[in-house]
Amino acid sequence: MKMASELPPQTASDLVNFLAECRASIDAELDRLLPTATTAPEKVHQAIRWSVFAGGKRFRPALLLAVGQTFQMPNALLLNTACALEMIHTYSLIHDDLPSMDNDDLRRGRPTCHVRFDEATAILAGDALQTLAFKTVAEDNTLSPSGRISLISELARATGTPEGMVAGQARDIEAESREVSSTELEEIHRLKTGALIVCAARCGAIIARAGEEEVSAITDYGARLGLLFQITDDLLDVTATAADLGKTPGKDARSLKATYPGLYGLAATKEAANRVHHEAHEALRKIHRPTKILAEIVDFILHRTA
Amino acid sequence: MKMASELPPQTASDLVNFLAECRASIDAELDRLLPTATTAPEKVHQAIRWSVFAGGKRFRPALLLAVGQTFQMPNALLLNTACALEMIHTYSLIHDDLPSMDNDDLRRGRPTCHVRFDEATAILAGDALQTLAFKTVAEDNTLSPSGRISLISELARATGTPEGMVAGQARDIEAESREVSSTELEEIHRLKTGALIVCAARCGAIIARAGEEEVSAITDYGARLGLLFQITDDLLDVTATAADLGKTPGKDARSLKATYPGLYGLAATKEAANRVHHEAHEALRKIHRPTKILAEIVDFILHRTA
Repeated sequence: MKMASELPPQTASDLVNFLAECRASIDAELDRLLPTATTAPEKVHQAIRWSVFAGGKRFRPALLLAVGQTFQMPNALLLNTACALEMIHTYSLIHDDLPSMDNDDLRRGRPTCHVRFDEATAILAGDALQTLAFKTVAEDNTLSPSGRISLISELARATGTPEGMVAGQARDIEAESREVSSTELEEIHRLKTGALIVCAARCGAIIARAGEEEVSAITDYGARLGLLFQITDDLLDVTATAADLGKTPGKDARSLKATYPGLYGLAATKEAANRVHHEAHEALRKIHRPTKILAEIVDFILHRTA
Repeated sequence: MKMASELPPQTASDLVNFLAECRASIDAELDRLLPTATTAPEKVHQAIRWSVFAGGKRFRPALLLAVGQTFQMPNALLLNTACALEMIHTYSLIHDDLPSMDNDDLRRGRPTCHVRFDEATAILAGDALQTLAFKTVAEDNTLSPSGRISLISELARATGTPEGMVAGQARDIEAESREVSSTELEEIHRLKTGALIVCAARCGAIIARAGEEEVSAITDYGARLGLLFQITDDLLDVTATAADLGKTPGKDARSLKATYPGLYGLAATKEAANRVHHEAHEALRKIHRPTKILAEIVDFILHRTA
């Protein structure tokens, strides 16, 4: 929310309000969907809640709501799928942080799941969250069975292999100990971060039964937004402080992990961010709806400081 | 297949043929559904295939096919869901074998996934297999969207928490270092092993759109079969040799893990197996179809030596 001062006051306040409202709705719905901390097996459910309610920005579900609202959909039809996305995102963070993966002790300024609990519990919490995501969409009675099937297929393709998040994580780990080409870097990010962001945008349009051309424009918008998200993430890793990030800055660069500044330098990376930001706005011109909030999200990601 | 000699020749040969045919169909379909070993990320896909094609008996998918065929369903409508079940079962084995979980180096006489590859790859292979299971059912065009939704909901409930396999694994780990009551032991097994076996039986009946009473009888049959499966698993752990099992016998008992022989002794455990075997046959009497193959499966599990 720090970037409020960098945007025209009216815009910033609209977007800040929108994001705050999204976050409140999503958190309330997640609380309803997740087993309580006193439901057996208690430790797994405590671990799930520890990681789901860790102060995440709810970027992916907010994007789904923003796209859905652009197509006039009420939140009631969007929230379950939005929460499923956040469950999948959180499961991936829990597993990525494990000692045999990225080995992170800290996330958003708090101990990671396996540090706060233990490795077995963290693995099972991630596993159960993935299952719950698919269950949530399958049992969402506000949507038609065929709508739910399309969403589950979208989610699964964006999450698994060979075209989703897990493929990206596997390729990222594989690339960690060697230099990567720029093509490879884009491909890793497209899968690891981009796939779920594109999926969020597409799911909003699918729930709204948007036409083929508009779904295609939303897909393009999501792809540029996902890339911008990753580029600014890499930039923040170089420029931000630990207090801003809630994690140790520079960690990615030190571990030889593929990053944009590492590959292109700081100036060229900032240029790339501006170019991709422009392309995202261009994609929105093909959507004949009031896309103000979607445009503001792109601006927000370009200027973010955390 | 060793138990062939313990059954009347005709019965044994029918069941042996049925199981062999199931295995061939399921293996061919799994081969079609899984990404090839040369698809990127190669290591994850090699790890998935290493574990899926590790000589598993395909008991859960065969049970689904047996129930479906009892209700006159052709294999074409059953095979995708049967493979999804095997994917979930395999993902659970890969994660259960991890060092922070059961820490098993050997399964079916071969190195486990994290030993053959590495921990990160094994975690990702399990994650991707779970995703692929839901994708497989969601994209099964031989079934109606509402049928697929019912199956995904069934699978998710049997797989996750608080009522499925992962809940059972969490409670099993939690109980490992202390004595457990008989009630607790049954509950752990009902979740850890039983839930997916009941699910297999129910999915066969759901695909066939069986009536409520028959689905209820199939659920009861599946529950008794699942319990029998676990009791005979515990018995084998005490009585079988390493060559029979492909793993170190007695391991469960030594780690204080909750087992039937550990709790009741060998004689009472064998009695319990016979009682549950009888109850499974009783459940079949409520199904007004030719249930010969389902009856033979119960006999097979009672007498199994591996």
